[in-house]
Amino acid sequence: MQRLDALAAISEDEGALTRRFATPEHRAAIELIGAWMQAAGMATHLDDAGTLVGRYEGESPDAPTLIMGSHQDTVRNGGKYDGMLGIVVPIACVQALHDAGRRLPLAIEVVAFGDEEGTRFQTTLFGSKALAGTFDMGVLARRDDDGVTVEQALRDLGLSPERIPDIARRPEDIRGFLEVHIEQGPVLEAEGLPLGIVTAIAGCSRLTVTVEGEAGHAGTVPMDRRRDALACAAEAITTIERHCRDAGDLVGTVGRLQAQPGAINVIPGRVTFTIDLRAPDDARRTTARDEITAKLNAIGNARGLCVTVEPVYEIGASRCDDGLQTALAEAITQEGGTPRHLFSGAGHDAMAMADLCPTAMLFVRCAGGISHNPRESIMAEDAAMAAKVLLRTLGSLS
Amino acid sequence: MQRLDALAAISEDEGALTRRFATPEHRAAIELIGAWMQAAGMATHLDDAGTLVGRYEGESPDAPTLIMGSHQDTVRNGGKYDGMLGIVVPIACVQALHDAGRRLPLAIEVVAFGDEEGTRFQTTLFGSKALAGTFDMGVLARRDDDGVTVEQALRDLGLSPERIPDIARRPEDIRGFLEVHIEQGPVLEAEGLPLGIVTAIAGCSRLTVTVEGEAGHAGTVPMDRRRDALACAAEAITTIERHCRDAGDLVGTVGRLQAQPGAINVIPGRVTFTIDLRAPDDARRTTARDEITAKLNAIGNARGLCVTVEPVYEIGASRCDDGLQTALAEAITQEGGTPRHLFSGAGHDAMAMADLCPTAMLFVRCAGGISHNPRESIMAEDAAMAAKVLLRTLGSLS
Repeated sequence: MQRLDALAAISEDEGALTRRFATPEHRAAIELIGAWMQAAGMATHLDDAGTLVGRYEGESPDAPTLIMGSHQDTVRNGGKYDGMLGIVVPIACVQALHDAGRRLPLAIEVVAFGDEEGTRFQTTLFGSKALAGTFDMGVLARRDDDGVTVEQALRDLGLSPERIPDIARRPEDIRGFLEVHIEQGPVLEAEGLPLGIVTAIAGCSRLTVTVEGEAGHAGTVPMDRRRDALACAAEAITTIERHCRDAGDLVGTVGRLQAQPGAINVIPGRVTFTIDLRAPDDARRTTARDEITAKLNAIGNARGLCVTVEPVYEIGASRCDDGLQTALAEAITQEGGTPRHLFSGAGHDAMAMADLCPTAMLFVRCAGGISHNPRESIMAEDAAMAAKVLLRTLGSLS
Repeated sequence: MQRLDALAAISEDEGALTRRFATPEHRAAIELIGAWMQAAGMATHLDDAGTLVGRYEGESPDAPTLIMGSHQDTVRNGGKYDGMLGIVVPIACVQALHDAGRRLPLAIEVVAFGDEEGTRFQTTLFGSKALAGTFDMGVLARRDDDGVTVEQALRDLGLSPERIPDIARRPEDIRGFLEVHIEQGPVLEAEGLPLGIVTAIAGCSRLTVTVEGEAGHAGTVPMDRRRDALACAAEAITTIERHCRDAGDLVGTVGRLQAQPGAINVIPGRVTFTIDLRAPDDARRTTARDEITAKLNAIGNARGLCVTVEPVYEIGASRCDDGLQTALAEAITQEGGTPRHLFSGAGHDAMAMADLCPTAMLFVRCAGGISHNPRESIMAEDAAMAAKVLLRTLGSLS
């Protein structure tokens, strides 16, 4: 917890935690984390995608490598556990191995990715995509708000971005990727459990819906002659909520809505809103997407309004490895806990790493499910439990 | 129809009809309307509230006075029938009397109110309140966008605003007030009827609703743990629509809605929206207001969200006179039409005049129910029918 506080003190904003990719604060975080890695017996280097890598060799030089880690960067005015917990906990595990003079049948690497949130360049999963060999070099041309390109920012950090393709690991060398992360949701807290095992990182479908009705005078148009776009949208939103509630392992959110013309005495003629659907199972998600689209069109038809549903974003779910999940579950049981499997509705570096190797995630309970916020909070006992479980899991793998 | 076109040509905006109170365009409209009144045998004067009054004496000097008329002003980029039709039709009726050398047991006045819409000073029913003796002199201090006060604007028109209280008519002198107006709604057109008789000008209750839920991550909060302010608001809007639809002679509109924070991937934590309720019967409206408030609170309680419903505006209904409604109905029947009674959801000068005398309104069918818009449109035959019915009604009153 002291290390997390120390990392959180490295911020671009006074009184708030903001640490973006390839900034002087990123450089300062690397130095601090690198010192902890070295103290734990790891050899460190900064790769050309800005990922700090600490390596603890295994029993033999040709041992496969297990990678653990998460990201060092934050959103603007973020919390001090999202990302950082997944760096500090594995370092503590390696420290324990090192203190005991213990080597495993696996080499271990702890990684601190420079950029997952994309706060500076609207990039995401920067370091993990580079390791997985799925990095898009076109991203290097993107600019931050000051006009600085990703490429220049990396060079300013002393790196050679043109060599990013060389970072990609070979699947045959990598045993797996384990990420410890705060849940960012309320489930573990509600159930009184410190830890959860992620079954999958949910896929996501995003849709925009346009409802075209007819604006009219709030006083002069009788109820049965209205083509009220907002009343139609309200029925649609209620339907989406009920559909997702009934489906199970599916969440759906209408986060943005705009009603026009937006006057107290005018019937809304046009409404646009967004839908965000997530599920750990792709078929469940795409079926829900299609069923909801059909239901919304039917609502429009019944009301004589034109409802247009347009898909704007699709990403498939990333399943976590069954064997690694089992290893985590056994470790939790051995530590006296209850294995709780749940899916992650948020995206994580493990999504990108899944293109390289088997992945697993260990969720840690957080207060109120709050994240991306200074009120982000965890309990020291839960972090300690995560470290014990992770260490036990490492010992069980080969 | 030619007169309406001629009036519509007097506009502040090129290519659009905007004619505000106490402007040079108002002055030009007065001159044109005054000339028509004089040609119809009326003596004209401009009262100190900017209302042009044309008077056609009755059979005897002590005959009571029937007032007819509407407003000359428009909204910005308005239509050419809202208001003006109610000035032009009565003048045509008096012209017919004058051409026939006919006097009635009633003196007739046709009024062209300077300001009903309040486009310039956010005043409403300016001239009709002055006649009814309910004018608030504090309004004279209001300023337009250029900082000109109402008082100064009236003085620039050559008027003496301090004498407005003297304009107020004595109830015992006034037989009634008849206003011809476009319907501004779709009912007559849908039923294939040129004219309608207004039973009442609806009262109005306006409410603002605040829904306080909890913002959260669109992916990580399961459906059964959400306190989604927009899903709650959607259920509320659906409930309001159903309540008003089932009630009859009641309309309810949610015209404005804002969802916060308003991001595609964040569960809305707070939503505010407005409700506008109108009914020709006050008890029906206030009962609906209270029942809807109770239903919205119940929806909030069931979802564990805080729903606050605040009344922000209340105005009672203005009932039209039964005797004058009967006279209009008989005239329509005699002209071969079908009397159709309906309420007015929009406000009119007749509301203010009801404080002075019995009132009635004759609605004229308009295309698509559209008003306050350049697409405002009526048929010449309907306007002619309105004139015939009005003339016949005048002949039947004493």
